[in-house]
Amino acid sequence: MNPQTGPGRSTRTTLAVIASDADVSMATVSKVLNGRPGVAHETRDRVQSLLLAHGYLKPGSERTVAPLIEIVFNELEDGWSLELLRGSEEVVRENGMSLVVTKSGDRHTPAADWIDGVVKRRPFGVILVLSDVADEQKRRLRRRNIPFVLVDPSGEPAADVPSIGSANWSGGVLATNHLISLGHRDIGVIAGPQDVTNARARLSGFRAAMADAGIPVREELIVPGNYHIDSGLEGGLQLLSNPRPPTAIFATNDLQALGVYEAARSKGIVVPDDLSVVGYDDVHFSAWAGPPLTTIHNPLAEMAAEAARLLIRFRNENQLDSIRRDLATSLVLRKSTAGVRERAER
Amino acid sequence: MNPQTGPGRSTRTTLAVIASDADVSMATVSKVLNGRPGVAHETRDRVQSLLLAHGYLKPGSERTVAPLIEIVFNELEDGWSLELLRGSEEVVRENGMSLVVTKSGDRHTPAADWIDGVVKRRPFGVILVLSDVADEQKRRLRRRNIPFVLVDPSGEPAADVPSIGSANWSGGVLATNHLISLGHRDIGVIAGPQDVTNARARLSGFRAAMADAGIPVREELIVPGNYHIDSGLEGGLQLLSNPRPPTAIFATNDLQALGVYEAARSKGIVVPDDLSVVGYDDVHFSAWAGPPLTTIHNPLAEMAAEAARLLIRFRNENQLDSIRRDLATSLVLRKSTAGVRERAER
Repeated sequence: MNPQTGPGRSTRTTLAVIASDADVSMATVSKVLNGRPGVAHETRDRVQSLLLAHGYLKPGSERTVAPLIEIVFNELEDGWSLELLRGSEEVVRENGMSLVVTKSGDRHTPAADWIDGVVKRRPFGVILVLSDVADEQKRRLRRRNIPFVLVDPSGEPAADVPSIGSANWSGGVLATNHLISLGHRDIGVIAGPQDVTNARARLSGFRAAMADAGIPVREELIVPGNYHIDSGLEGGLQLLSNPRPPTAIFATNDLQALGVYEAARSKGIVVPDDLSVVGYDDVHFSAWAGPPLTTIHNPLAEMAAEAARLLIRFRNENQLDSIRRDLATSLVLRKSTAGVRERAER
Repeated sequence: MNPQTGPGRSTRTTLAVIASDADVSMATVSKVLNGRPGVAHETRDRVQSLLLAHGYLKPGSERTVAPLIEIVFNELEDGWSLELLRGSEEVVRENGMSLVVTKSGDRHTPAADWIDGVVKRRPFGVILVLSDVADEQKRRLRRRNIPFVLVDPSGEPAADVPSIGSANWSGGVLATNHLISLGHRDIGVIAGPQDVTNARARLSGFRAAMADAGIPVREELIVPGNYHIDSGLEGGLQLLSNPRPPTAIFATNDLQALGVYEAARSKGIVVPDDLSVVGYDDVHFSAWAGPPLTTIHNPLAEMAAEAARLLIRFRNENQLDSIRRDLATSLVLRKSTAGVRERAER
């Protein structure tokens, strides 16, 4: 099987000969040569070997797959980053591979030079967290047959980009309905970054639930945040300084909820007696906040695990495009919310 | 430089010829063949190529170094795991490499099969967190010239194992002296797992500070913990149920401190008015606990960064053995401690 041993042969080989040797169609050879999907993994390997041997692929570009799955974060932030790591690491390890962790770029897309590293590392697949990929990056990954999945994508991914998200809009509705059911009408929101899809969806869920209940939204009680603790503190202080402050705050993530806690403490406002707070994400420490935080469970570990499983399935079945899945969210009742009447009775 | 082109040569090659070809001593060839340290990186590469070409090393065992640094955790736990990841990821990335994250084994040593994976991956180096390595694992890593560094080792590492730790005993002294300076004498301790060196050192620092101040230690106020939140809750409840409860608790890590907070809340005890609490580690969320936690800063990110730098230095200078370094710890004053008199005045 070493075509180099046939002297002179290289001069007469053509793609047609390779197709014949590999027992595949010309179209398949062309797909492999151009890194297009739609070729079974074993077939691709066979054709690639022939292309390499005949000089159609340069040595070193033989596309050996390393037993690595790469997870790319735009930031390594407490709580949710670790949940995603945990979920993916477990699946990756169970499948005899290793997890590469990369921090890259800004909130939206990996840095331009990141792609060079990926191409060199030739991982089994790539999990992109809270990211989108530029068309050029997409093209380079595809050309090298490196599958990728977006987790919790920050924008609306293109139709040909597989992604795993969660039901953020429903989560926003659940959080708001819970507060409404406790009698709250003056509900504040620390909105997340509105260039991120999940933040827009959570806020939109809030508005939908309020509209459904026929409660007017007080727009001055919706303040911006960036999903970090300090913006929860800042937004919380702003809301609690309102002459008619909210009786409840939907913090839209757990870190911002911790910031709201601190804002309340600094003003001598007791959660939940004077102020109900609902977080979002259900990261580990939210159960241990003071008081334990009522929040929306975001299946972060499961999302990352599912992304890893998708990549593995892609390698086996060579089909990944057009997958788009949202996992369910749910309300986790703890101790940071209470009926609004308790406050009126003060 | 392709010795295979010299026909018949393979029959007369010996290690002496390789030494001559590589312009090194026989001893050096022998070191490389047996994976012993003490050979400059470039020289090693040159000798390995020759050994490989002459059949002294099997193809596939040519020990190509992958641009990966591997960090091994025994658990991926909130707060401190992420600090270590952040610190190492940054240095690894700045040096054009990638970080592999592995969860393996129990608290002390990586699982036996982990080593097979490492040997296959041929990483640039390995950072072992809260771990020791078995002699057999050590031997296999050395044979393949894969350098490793322990971070915050759980036992006393052997003299030939490089490690980066921090000043845990001093941290225990600092925490205790702070409480003593506020007038506390009845000080409780949630001790960490006593089979882990840093936990023993922190407790020992507590005892030393108490002895220095001439304050007798009430042994019934020292309760066991496992560094997780729930053991802080359990231990906190036990301490606060004592007929003469402590006026202050040294929780020995931040997670246990959060558990103590919850124990205090459940008993209507206010921190810091009724009870002072000092944590340990200074993980990100400790600044945002209710109230913000006074704690000992443990330079976790810096420890992991330093470990990564050591591995890189090893590859450049080929000298790593016998390095043992402890980074400094310091007291971070926040709002969870107060003078004991305030309590007496209740």
